Amino acid sequence: MTKTYIHGVGMTKFGNHSDKTLKSLLLDASREALEAAGRPKIDAVFVGNFLGGSMSNQEILGAIVANDLGLGYIPTAKVEGACASGGIALRQGILGVMSGEYDTVLVAGVEKMKHANTPDVTQAINAAMDTDSNEKHAGLTFPGFFGVLAHRYFHETDATKEHLAMVALKNRENALNNPLAQFQKATSIEEIMNARLITEPLGLFDCSPMTDGAAAVVISRKPSGIHVRASALVSGPTQMQDAAELLSIPAIGESGRRAYEKAGLGPEDIDVIEIHDCFSMTEIIAIEELGFFPRLEGWKAVAAGHTKPGGKKPVNTSGGLLSRGHPIGATGLSQIYQLVHQLNGTAPNQVKGARIALAQNLGGTGSYSAVHILERV
Amino acid sequence: MTKTYIHGVGMTKFGNHSDKTLKSLLLDASREALEAAGRPKIDAVFVGNFLGGSMSNQEILGAIVANDLGLGYIPTAKVEGACASGGIALRQGILGVMSGEYDTVLVAGVEKMKHANTPDVTQAINAAMDTDSNEKHAGLTFPGFFGVLAHRYFHETDATKEHLAMVALKNRENALNNPLAQFQKATSIEEIMNARLITEPLGLFDCSPMTDGAAAVVISRKPSGIHVRASALVSGPTQMQDAAELLSIPAIGESGRRAYEKAGLGPEDIDVIEIHDCFSMTEIIAIEELGFFPRLEGWKAVAAGHTKPGGKKPVNTSGGLLSRGHPIGATGLSQIYQLVHQLNGTAPNQVKGARIALAQNLGGTGSYSAVHILERV
Repeated sequence: MTKTYIHGVGMTKFGNHSDKTLKSLLLDASREALEAAGRPKIDAVFVGNFLGGSMSNQEILGAIVANDLGLGYIPTAKVEGACASGGIALRQGILGVMSGEYDTVLVAGVEKMKHANTPDVTQAINAAMDTDSNEKHAGLTFPGFFGVLAHRYFHETDATKEHLAMVALKNRENALNNPLAQFQKATSIEEIMNARLITEPLGLFDCSPMTDGAAAVVISRKPSGIHVRASALVSGPTQMQDAAELLSIPAIGESGRRAYEKAGLGPEDIDVIEIHDCFSMTEIIAIEELGFFPRLEGWKAVAAGHTKPGGKKPVNTSGGLLSRGHPIGATGLSQIYQLVHQLNGTAPNQVKGARIALAQNLGGTGSYSAVHILERV
Repeated sequence: MTKTYIHGVGMTKFGNHSDKTLKSLLLDASREALEAAGRPKIDAVFVGNFLGGSMSNQEILGAIVANDLGLGYIPTAKVEGACASGGIALRQGILGVMSGEYDTVLVAGVEKMKHANTPDVTQAINAAMDTDSNEKHAGLTFPGFFGVLAHRYFHETDATKEHLAMVALKNRENALNNPLAQFQKATSIEEIMNARLITEPLGLFDCSPMTDGAAAVVISRKPSGIHVRASALVSGPTQMQDAAELLSIPAIGESGRRAYEKAGLGPEDIDVIEIHDCFSMTEIIAIEELGFFPRLEGWKAVAAGHTKPGGKKPVNTSGGLLSRGHPIGATGLSQIYQLVHQLNGTAPNQVKGARIALAQNLGGTGSYSAVHILERV
């Protein structure tokens, strides 16, 4: 089977880019990745993006990258899977390499959200729910969904709001060392605990922010120092009412199991992890689903510091979605950006000797989960 | 190299489905294709769609198909490339089969446009232009672009508005025999010539309509009677000002050349053709770009009847975008639907003994062109 390697990564600062367009962010990250890869000939482009049509009246992002970067008449496409769009775009690039059609592929992700007001963004993001479902029309939103999960988690365990705050604090502290992260201001557990509620029990710091930004990756069948050891993607229930069990997001677990199987590895082999912490609660569920900690015990691992940079399983050394920021289509690729730097020994909150890394990118309330395992070779 | 075959196709009636949602159209076509394929195990889903987010607040269509049709925890994604979204989705499915990751893939396309008023649809469709370009802000729209081409074509040749009308009439007459086509009402060359202008010189019948509809295809590495002999996709200039020559849409020509090369065939080998006639003018440019007729002589072929069902190169026996309708994300797959029926001998306007068929799907003003060549084996 054809192997795929990473040759270069690029990423804009995440935050508020009111002076830049969706396109210019996308091109900035793409140029940086191409430069880092040594300007190879690119055979195809995949772009991960969710809100370009609804919030920037801008689609055809694949063609725009090829045209504006002078890549020639090559195949391009945009790929969408809600908040997992970036991870899914990476997977399409990998499939393209595995197919034999492409040697080298540029995968980029972008989102621009800060130019709109919060109700409009919330409305646009709700395109990640099933419009024909009663849940959406009943007023369920994503903070609402994960708030329900948190309540149930508290009911089933001895976890409290303070454990959520510990996740938020860890990721904020990690972001302090990441110059590309959206939030660079120190905070305290008290500030997090006392922040205004978004959806009970989730406060402001428990929720990922609106963010502008882009990230890009160049992959190739030609060997490099970073091997994509596994790529897995699954879709799961699109509605809360279809979930068999409220405290499981089965797409995460299933994507993890498939990735481990393809890699011939298990959770015990992973040195550093980027997880889709769209909410603090999601990070706890995900570290359980991916087998890093037992079911209903993720909160204990957080409390014990196991997910901190010096801990047994460092999670979101970049700051995660909560503090690096969450420009939706770019998120999955910004995880790869951080992990490639971890494997190269050049990351903020560097994990010493990191050799195997895992990225998990979620879409909707479990409609998509993409897992990629990278290895320094 | 892994070969890909078509096992089943499905398609809703194209037209006004005010009683149905985007999702229900998508599921209807998908179910029909799965049934036609004998309900195989599906390993992945790709959905082609352009306006779901902006006009129906509905993304995550890949996950919705997998969830609602009970396909299990499988990889899914939506693919976007403006009006070429359907053809590009098909190509991603083929790459997935070629990669060895999937045996059998469901590819579906959908759009719902009739619930909105024309200015809102025009605005949403303009996401297929580069928002950072001056062309878009100067007020260029797609009818405007193809109107400019038509004027220039008339200047360079002896073609007139009547030749455009001949294309529109042919496709309308073809649609009369296609029960799934949007327009089932006979017309005359006079009615077409005298219809109200949309953009000089393009009248109402020269422009593809707003349409609701869906189409779907099941592909597999397992052999069937219909072999996908070639799949090609290229991106080209995203702006009129980037085009080297106004009467060429180079993405069409390049996608055709690559498809012929992969298939080991030439235009002379093609028995029946579905082309992206978003405007009557586009059909003339496309039959030239794809080598069916010499440059600047497509209009003569139309006048001579060569593109009619009984002619040398029957084009758009389905009625084409102009009369079958143009539900954007579904269009590329509805072309495959028609061609599979042609190769099986069961099509409206059946071309006797058709063995090799070509579909060409355009995005934007040449931002994307996808060509697929099918063969009865």
